[in-house]
Amino acid sequence: MEVVKNKQVVLKWFVVGAPTEKDMEVREGTATLKAPTGSGGLVVKNLYLSCDPYMRGRMRESYSSYIPPFQPGNVIEGFGVAKVVDSDNPNFSAGDYVTGHTGWEEYSLITRTESLRKVEKNDIPLSFHVGLLGMPGFTAYAGFYEVCAPKKGDYVFVSAASGAVGQLVGQLAKLHGCYVVGSAGSKQKVQLLKDKLGFDEAFNYKEESDLNAALERYFPEGIDIYFDNVGGAMLDAALLNMKVHGRVAVCGMVSQHSYTDSEGIHNMYALVRKRIRVEGFLQSDYLHLYPKFLDCVSNYYREGKIIYLEDIAEGLENGPSAFVGLFSGKNVGKQVVCVARE
Amino acid sequence: MEVVKNKQVVLKWFVVGAPTEKDMEVREGTATLKAPTGSGGLVVKNLYLSCDPYMRGRMRESYSSYIPPFQPGNVIEGFGVAKVVDSDNPNFSAGDYVTGHTGWEEYSLITRTESLRKVEKNDIPLSFHVGLLGMPGFTAYAGFYEVCAPKKGDYVFVSAASGAVGQLVGQLAKLHGCYVVGSAGSKQKVQLLKDKLGFDEAFNYKEESDLNAALERYFPEGIDIYFDNVGGAMLDAALLNMKVHGRVAVCGMVSQHSYTDSEGIHNMYALVRKRIRVEGFLQSDYLHLYPKFLDCVSNYYREGKIIYLEDIAEGLENGPSAFVGLFSGKNVGKQVVCVARE
Repeated sequence: MEVVKNKQVVLKWFVVGAPTEKDMEVREGTATLKAPTGSGGLVVKNLYLSCDPYMRGRMRESYSSYIPPFQPGNVIEGFGVAKVVDSDNPNFSAGDYVTGHTGWEEYSLITRTESLRKVEKNDIPLSFHVGLLGMPGFTAYAGFYEVCAPKKGDYVFVSAASGAVGQLVGQLAKLHGCYVVGSAGSKQKVQLLKDKLGFDEAFNYKEESDLNAALERYFPEGIDIYFDNVGGAMLDAALLNMKVHGRVAVCGMVSQHSYTDSEGIHNMYALVRKRIRVEGFLQSDYLHLYPKFLDCVSNYYREGKIIYLEDIAEGLENGPSAFVGLFSGKNVGKQVVCVARE
Repeated sequence: MEVVKNKQVVLKWFVVGAPTEKDMEVREGTATLKAPTGSGGLVVKNLYLSCDPYMRGRMRESYSSYIPPFQPGNVIEGFGVAKVVDSDNPNFSAGDYVTGHTGWEEYSLITRTESLRKVEKNDIPLSFHVGLLGMPGFTAYAGFYEVCAPKKGDYVFVSAASGAVGQLVGQLAKLHGCYVVGSAGSKQKVQLLKDKLGFDEAFNYKEESDLNAALERYFPEGIDIYFDNVGGAMLDAALLNMKVHGRVAVCGMVSQHSYTDSEGIHNMYALVRKRIRVEGFLQSDYLHLYPKFLDCVSNYYREGKIIYLEDIAEGLENGPSAFVGLFSGKNVGKQVVCVARE
């Protein structure tokens, strides 16, 4: 039974506030490259790991989140793309590429295979299965089409617009005939939004002393749809600038380092005056649409109608800093960690 | 042409913050009891005037509200029930009872008659046409059935539950097969909710040092529907206690003395975790349902399935204090000002 070295990223303790690199440890473990007989499991070699903001919730102790917390001392888990090394499961064979929940380590034994989906190695980059064609892409798709109720000609605002979710929301909105403005946190990102991602306008929120004034400038007639990836002060400003019967899809609150927003939202009254609907959602409630999503977005990509920006950190040892960077907006596009290319 | 004395309530200046009695003046004016020929208008004798929280918005200067502000020096307007004294309009005759927009004065000349609806003097008290069968009643009906998406067995929480809107929401929810808890601001109101209005439970929010704990106590399994009449801290606590896919209908924010909530809402993250929909609404978006509402609620009332509590201030001179009392919860039930009984 072959035993190999296995680099792993471990959570050191439960995290309070924003995660830092010190909360994680890269250690040298071992892995057995054989799936135990009768386990129904797989041993996989992890290729690409996904850095997603929701993972922060799993680093906290027993918060009544929608998924259970990680345990200190254990390997962090997340979405990934991997290659099957050994299989005790009739649905998978050595050499298959799969995407789904895996560990932040070089090799993982996956016994809960329900979340795994086989993927082809083809003209679509493998890493896209944790991005454009993975959870973030599906979040954009389900949130935009199912929660935002978009109509042609709608004025759409997207925050964290060059991120894993936002960049696809903006492109889908453009394809739907909407006018789209994005916000991001650097000049470079603003340029990408306008030059590469086809947004009508974009602005750097860090250069705006008054977010309300910025939104008034970009949406003199108001916002029909706000796809909210950040919460906090931007959400508050957007509420003031929504049109009557505007819709806000609350996707994430990456600006909020804890589960209570210490500044608070002060413009809720706008909901009544303008009959605004604010709706939180999770892509997992829409999984019946996943095949349709894969079809739609793969086609758009192949037809050259959409692109997808990735920020790839090379090597598992750079995983913690890549993950932590999400919360300061260090990444440009979808943050992925490349553990191995093949 | 008969000219009579006409007591009037006038706005003295634009109001900042919570309105006080000093912001209004009761003065002695005059009225001509003849509708000008060719005006298409009516002269009415006002019988019952409605005190509604939304009127506060019209006392502020040029806030982009959904209705234009009152003008200082002019008579305050609101919903009322009145008797036609003279008509220059073929649709109305002297002696008709009407309900709609009128002035806070003994006699009004109404030239914009589109908002007026004739009502019968019958077994339903005339004053109910500004309450149970008026805008507050319709707000409860439209908000509950159209915004809350209620299902039999749902756990429903109503704030300001003995008020003009809340008391009907609770009763409709009970008739729909829901479990209903109300909050109010006095022992007397809590008793009325339980003894007269058929709520399953009720509590005095002023006696609760921790609103979150109070809601946890009354909703150990969580809240499906929160019908929010107050905003602020109660909304924040309710967000923490919503069930997955819970719905919040934001009807009013009587707890907020200005349009920005200085304390703020801190639990917006719950929207994502629990996929909560928070929707502001105005009854005026649902006017196509008004005939159905009148039919439904009149029948419930006649069948003894619902009751409606009113707090009637006698005399126009008591109008300002009755109106101001809304914002400290002085009223028990729907606040009405009786100008004259006939």
